[in-house]
Amino acid sequence: MTMDMDGQLILHEYARSGNCYKIRLTAAHLDVPLTRREYDIMAGETRTPGFLAEVNANGRIPVLQIGDRFLPESNAACFWLAEGSHLIPADRFDRADMLRWMFWEQYNHEPNVATLRFWLAFVGEAALTDQQRDLLPAKRAAGEAALKLMDEHLGRQRWFAGRAFSLADIALYAYTHVAEDGGFRLDDYPHVRRWLDHVSALPGHIVIDA
Amino acid sequence: MTMDMDGQLILHEYARSGNCYKIRLTAAHLDVPLTRREYDIMAGETRTPGFLAEVNANGRIPVLQIGDRFLPESNAACFWLAEGSHLIPADRFDRADMLRWMFWEQYNHEPNVATLRFWLAFVGEAALTDQQRDLLPAKRAAGEAALKLMDEHLGRQRWFAGRAFSLADIALYAYTHVAEDGGFRLDDYPHVRRWLDHVSALPGHIVIDA
Repeated sequence: MTMDMDGQLILHEYARSGNCYKIRLTAAHLDVPLTRREYDIMAGETRTPGFLAEVNANGRIPVLQIGDRFLPESNAACFWLAEGSHLIPADRFDRADMLRWMFWEQYNHEPNVATLRFWLAFVGEAALTDQQRDLLPAKRAAGEAALKLMDEHLGRQRWFAGRAFSLADIALYAYTHVAEDGGFRLDDYPHVRRWLDHVSALPGHIVIDA
Repeated sequence: MTMDMDGQLILHEYARSGNCYKIRLTAAHLDVPLTRREYDIMAGETRTPGFLAEVNANGRIPVLQIGDRFLPESNAACFWLAEGSHLIPADRFDRADMLRWMFWEQYNHEPNVATLRFWLAFVGEAALTDQQRDLLPAKRAAGEAALKLMDEHLGRQRWFAGRAFSLADIALYAYTHVAEDGGFRLDDYPHVRRWLDHVSALPGHIVIDA
């Protein structure tokens, strides 16, 4: 794959974030080199005036820097990297269906599965606010519903969109494969388990702490 | 624009939903006819066994039916409709940046601006659960932060992605133009106000209750 921009690609990230891992995993499958720049989100390094002014006014990572332009939102960065590659289906319906799963991931999966991982494995239950603690049951139920929906879908087809591995699989793999950090039991979702194994066995795969 | 599928396009929707309006607005700009099928979400019509089995296992509208295939997620449906049209930027970065704003809309804007409209103008404050009531201040603050981010961006450029009106503007217009239903004050965001006027003045525009 050729890059049609000036200069290098810089990933502004917090390496343990699944959203950042999505971009690294996409780049690995495409054999595209990324320069990595780490920010400590626990210390507020993405909320400094400099970060807000120069990298992302939304105060979040990941941001993919392409030459002198900045692209926030993990799934948009994956799309930029993968355009024209085998990671995006050639069929019009399948391409939109890939995006369907990526939007679903950000709306139904990430705010539950990723947030519980962050609260329980990074912040720690003892340090949660009362409001966060009150939300645990609702986020648990919504996360389980998301995993169940994935499991049913993967009982019918091998990959999320179309007939091949795509960005939809990458987007959903990122937080699903570490869902047990947030207290979910992956053994309850056997089709998801099998799909996780298929993803991690692909040539080009890298692990989250690579 | 020509349609490359068999049969008609059916929008499974709840007309007052901004997510459903996005798809109608996209189709209006493209002059593509949609057959509309209404569900009463307040009466649970998208959670029936039939709906879950045939239309969307996620129990939500909108779903765009394309022949005998079903495409959930509003922004994915807009993308399917608009591929190859002037509503998607031709430039690679701008195209990904359009998706960036669409993902941002689903993650940072819709769960706050749209949810407060739904809770306050549809459900009614008196009928909220205690947990919903406890979340009002956090959703108010997050919705205001989203509108502020939009306002700053629109102080620098006329449209969200690239130099022309795109699906990013449609996705963000849908719930922003009715944000006052959720108690937000649009006069606090003058650049957003001006952009709303630009969007509604475009040829092809339709209103949410058309």
